[in-house]
Amino acid sequence: MSVTAPQGFRAAGVAAGLKSTGARDLALVVNDGPLDVAAAVFTANRVQAAPVQWSRQAVADGRARAVVLNSGGANACTGPEGFADTHRTAEHLAARLDVSAQDVLVCSTGLIGERLPMGPLLEGADAASAALATGDEAGLDAARAIMTTDTVHKTASTTTPSGAVVGGMAKGAGMLAPQLATMLVVITTDAVVDAATARGALAEATAHTFDRVDSDACMSTNDTVILLASGASGVTLDRDELTAGVREVAATLARALVADAEGASHDVHVVVRSASSEDAALAVAREIARSNLVKAAIFGNDPNWGRIVAAAGCVPEHVAPFDPEHLSVRVNGVEVCRDGGVGEDRSLVDMTPRETLIEVDLAAGDAAGDIWTNDLTHDYVEENSAYSS
Amino acid sequence: MSVTAPQGFRAAGVAAGLKSTGARDLALVVNDGPLDVAAAVFTANRVQAAPVQWSRQAVADGRARAVVLNSGGANACTGPEGFADTHRTAEHLAARLDVSAQDVLVCSTGLIGERLPMGPLLEGADAASAALATGDEAGLDAARAIMTTDTVHKTASTTTPSGAVVGGMAKGAGMLAPQLATMLVVITTDAVVDAATARGALAEATAHTFDRVDSDACMSTNDTVILLASGASGVTLDRDELTAGVREVAATLARALVADAEGASHDVHVVVRSASSEDAALAVAREIARSNLVKAAIFGNDPNWGRIVAAAGCVPEHVAPFDPEHLSVRVNGVEVCRDGGVGEDRSLVDMTPRETLIEVDLAAGDAAGDIWTNDLTHDYVEENSAYSS
Repeated sequence: MSVTAPQGFRAAGVAAGLKSTGARDLALVVNDGPLDVAAAVFTANRVQAAPVQWSRQAVADGRARAVVLNSGGANACTGPEGFADTHRTAEHLAARLDVSAQDVLVCSTGLIGERLPMGPLLEGADAASAALATGDEAGLDAARAIMTTDTVHKTASTTTPSGAVVGGMAKGAGMLAPQLATMLVVITTDAVVDAATARGALAEATAHTFDRVDSDACMSTNDTVILLASGASGVTLDRDELTAGVREVAATLARALVADAEGASHDVHVVVRSASSEDAALAVAREIARSNLVKAAIFGNDPNWGRIVAAAGCVPEHVAPFDPEHLSVRVNGVEVCRDGGVGEDRSLVDMTPRETLIEVDLAAGDAAGDIWTNDLTHDYVEENSAYSS
Repeated sequence: MSVTAPQGFRAAGVAAGLKSTGARDLALVVNDGPLDVAAAVFTANRVQAAPVQWSRQAVADGRARAVVLNSGGANACTGPEGFADTHRTAEHLAARLDVSAQDVLVCSTGLIGERLPMGPLLEGADAASAALATGDEAGLDAARAIMTTDTVHKTASTTTPSGAVVGGMAKGAGMLAPQLATMLVVITTDAVVDAATARGALAEATAHTFDRVDSDACMSTNDTVILLASGASGVTLDRDELTAGVREVAATLARALVADAEGASHDVHVVVRSASSEDAALAVAREIARSNLVKAAIFGNDPNWGRIVAAAGCVPEHVAPFDPEHLSVRVNGVEVCRDGGVGEDRSLVDMTPRETLIEVDLAAGDAAGDIWTNDLTHDYVEENSAYSS
């Protein structure tokens, strides 16, 4: 039920000594083909870690044979030397796997501004190569090796109507990650697809899943989502079926990221409806999801609709046209704000469930959009202030 | 040294019973002229409280005789009834002061979504009218009456080179205000100026002071800054001298807002230099000032330049063109990041002072801009979650 669920993939997760804890910290995923189709999306942050710079150009040709991922160091803001380290890692594994370095993608997560210990890392890469295997255990080992502040490993898989399999793994502990909540995802499939189809399917799937998780509005320098297709099932998928399969796995993994934001006491789902456009709905949902006052109120089990309405009001009219006088807000099903004013009795709202549902009706059209976030808690402040880095 | 510092102004601050504590909660400032010039700027939030809606149109003609301000209730999201309450307050005081209701501006701060108790409020208005007086004490009473979570009243005054006086008072406790940090400011001057000059001077002064305080990126539904000119000094000021005087008072009051963010353990001054434009500098400074990860790191006395650089990288290139490879960051004088990479030893940074200075050099031009904010602390979360509202 992980990256090794589809046919044609081997994986491994080993302890290279990058983490002081001695836990697994280096993962390897290899596509044995027959196809070597690959697509990827990267962080929109203009400050991009060396592995992001490397993988972006390596995957440009739509092909990749392997992905090596390490925790214990982000290799970001490390200059030309940091890029050389990434390049060297790819070259080293390429020789081991008898593929081109250009077909080895690299992902890193951990502290920013520090070089990676290349000795242990390359030895770990050798160990991972030797440990490559098919089957669930290997996939789970890989998923465990990319964990940082994650409390659980995150995997998912599904079988499409036509019988192709899509699997995946992810790391990221939402708002709690002391290092900008780096999100690393590898999704695999044994479907027969071409690079353009894979690229389109991944873009569409991420736009509706990972792009809608906004734990603390901070974009990482290392975020990467990779899709590999082996074609080993012999099942050809069209764009729609591939997209649906990838989206299902991506949605499961994205939800797992939010659920693992441990310092959080609530997973918050902000749904904006009756908007003039999907972009307008997402802009309002994101503004609410990023409001510290809204997030802190939810931590306090306070259905504070005034803060929700005020956050919505911060979105410029040209971005999201709506009349504040006609705005309504439901919190966990109770319409606490109606037509911009007091609605049902807020004391009717049960805030005790882990999931808080905020539904905003803009009365401005028929488009909708949603964002997942977490509440703002003492543990968030603790995790992000107590640990020097 | 407050709104009564300039000639031609009387003020009062009384306890109307709007606050359960019995503390002063209603302030009145009257301009006895001879001039009744007025200008005001209001929150950019599209959700605007009744008093903001009223005062915006009342001051449109550039004239006002009085400002009544209450704490203990924001009168926001209260519908037509809430607007009627504000209108009634203005009418009531107008009769008392023998002026037109259109010349009475109204400001409110407190809970959103609740009607004001009009009985006590109007009685308080009568008491305030009776208590109107010139001199420091009256001005201080008014400043005390608009406090909410403020721990100290905030006043300032200055004398311009030509001898006109500018005074002011403000309320707002920065990031700690459980109700969106409503900021109410009244600035007075006995200078002889016309409405257009007053409007221009106020806009320019606020753009460089209050607009650059960003405690938690949450815009209030009630924020109001009012400038009243009595002309009582007989001293005529040109636009530049008036702007300088108003800006000096506004800067003092704005700095006081940041300093009173009690839950905060640091006042953070983000200065961005070598930008392609002032707007670009402000966009980068604001993104850094709004990063929860940066703010939490500062609370932890961690000069985490990686988070600062990553926050800067979140600003779109078309908004702020710069090359991340040439970006440098100084924290309290130590260049911890040079050319986008590791700079001086971060352990050299002394984070113990209350004020943290973050200086970012974009190496993209010669424009600069700055934003004041606070760190993200346990007390912020506590203040904004523990108090239901």
